[in-house]
Amino acid sequence: MSSLNFYPSLKEARPFIESIRTQPSGQKLSVGSVHTLGALHRGHGELIRRAAEENDIALVTVYPNKIQLFPGSVYEYSLEQDMRLAEEYGATHFITSSDQEMFPEGYNTFINQGEAYTRLNSSVFPFAARGQVTGAIRWMIFTQPTRSYYGMKNIEQALLVKQAASDLLLHTEICHVPCIRHKDGIPISSRLRGIADGPRRELAAVYEVLEFGRKSILSGHQDVESLLELMKTRLSENLSSFKLLYVTSVDSNSFAFKENLTPPLVLHIAVQNEKISHFDGLCLLSEEDLLHGPNTIWLDN
Amino acid sequence: MSSLNFYPSLKEARPFIESIRTQPSGQKLSVGSVHTLGALHRGHGELIRRAAEENDIALVTVYPNKIQLFPGSVYEYSLEQDMRLAEEYGATHFITSSDQEMFPEGYNTFINQGEAYTRLNSSVFPFAARGQVTGAIRWMIFTQPTRSYYGMKNIEQALLVKQAASDLLLHTEICHVPCIRHKDGIPISSRLRGIADGPRRELAAVYEVLEFGRKSILSGHQDVESLLELMKTRLSENLSSFKLLYVTSVDSNSFAFKENLTPPLVLHIAVQNEKISHFDGLCLLSEEDLLHGPNTIWLDN
Repeated sequence: MSSLNFYPSLKEARPFIESIRTQPSGQKLSVGSVHTLGALHRGHGELIRRAAEENDIALVTVYPNKIQLFPGSVYEYSLEQDMRLAEEYGATHFITSSDQEMFPEGYNTFINQGEAYTRLNSSVFPFAARGQVTGAIRWMIFTQPTRSYYGMKNIEQALLVKQAASDLLLHTEICHVPCIRHKDGIPISSRLRGIADGPRRELAAVYEVLEFGRKSILSGHQDVESLLELMKTRLSENLSSFKLLYVTSVDSNSFAFKENLTPPLVLHIAVQNEKISHFDGLCLLSEEDLLHGPNTIWLDN
Repeated sequence: MSSLNFYPSLKEARPFIESIRTQPSGQKLSVGSVHTLGALHRGHGELIRRAAEENDIALVTVYPNKIQLFPGSVYEYSLEQDMRLAEEYGATHFITSSDQEMFPEGYNTFINQGEAYTRLNSSVFPFAARGQVTGAIRWMIFTQPTRSYYGMKNIEQALLVKQAASDLLLHTEICHVPCIRHKDGIPISSRLRGIADGPRRELAAVYEVLEFGRKSILSGHQDVESLLELMKTRLSENLSSFKLLYVTSVDSNSFAFKENLTPPLVLHIAVQNEKISHFDGLCLLSEEDLLHGPNTIWLDN
């Protein structure tokens, strides 16, 4: 029998949220939250596992936030499967919602972080950062978690949400969880399931070129422009079905383009074919990250 | 002896905020909040009185939010006087902060409500809406009040904050408190203290023209453009030291310019002399408001 507490709407979840901090004992329960679009996989599982391990309550939300998806696209997911996976990884509470409830007529409010919303993924999909950050902030305002978990697979979202939560004075600690990669370097992603061997090797090359960039900095390369050019050249030689969109480097705090190669910095690459856009990056916050690469969870198979 | 609990910074207020909902009894205390820039007067007093009457805790914040003030201007206020006034009207808790704490290096997050930020006061001071709404939302996220009180003296802020709080899923009820007016119709405002009789009569004319507009709609005037023209002509005849900036009408929900004169609507006027910019308006949400005027608190003297 499932012990997962399920709330099919914000309306039905609200009394639960308001009750968390008013236990009869006066005790304060800690809440770890994971906010998703649905179609959960092993990557979300790791976020949920951390939330469950570090908090009394592990809360998962599933809602395909329309303002961060390609306009008009349909996001395919199964609520039943997502609930099952969430529970397997330790979720205790699960909330979903609908476009009607999340975006009632007259909805008009967005989080804005200026120029930062024109970098990385958002330089390709201009609505991405605004949608992702607004979506995450709304869920955290609603659920009031003690800690909220974001995967470093999506570096843009993880960093911008952390900045927004701090700026907006949320009482929530933003926890970054390492990217999970297959042996060939490809990050796990629902969009990459069933990808053929050829394109797969191209995406593995994206990771290899990021690593090449990191090691070049480590071995003394100091000029941004020439390093990015080197990376582009190297990657282009390994792409056939994918087109290179950019190789770039931004400051991990301000999202300004880097003028040097000193941490904190993000090395980031985007490639695209007819079916998918693939983004990958290394977030190098410290000399330590530069030396060993960012923390990564490696899969065996 | 003062019984007001004083917190000189967010850092020192945080444990208090986090303790509110975790009473040893498991009881939930309601919190009413009033967020101000300082230089409190009778108008703020009314907000505080309502917060104290309707909640267990009445929380006042004073911080001259730099992003909603004219860049480079100095906002004059006395924390000591503000605390005294807050306590007189029933405040139990009082928080202040500093630019350094509110806007640390790298601060980068703002609330955005699109076109709505170009209307009313913000058509004159383009930073106004963004600063006011971002400021209010940040304080409400931080203090997590049950209810938060906004005066209808500042119609733009009151309406936009209510929309933003709803859109961002805050668990806070936004309460609008009627504008307080002197017998001649002028709203009480710290900036109007000590104004000379001549300019004062001009600002009274602003209110009279708003009332003329309301009564014209009531008696069947249906065309927006011609009514606004009539109001402009009438007001211009009564202005000498003040310059007319605009007479306008927007939908109170969308802030779109009205194309008809059916409630909900806001009639709004701005005038300006060398010293001050004065904004006044009527928020007519219903046929009832149209019939009697919006709820107003009238002063005797």
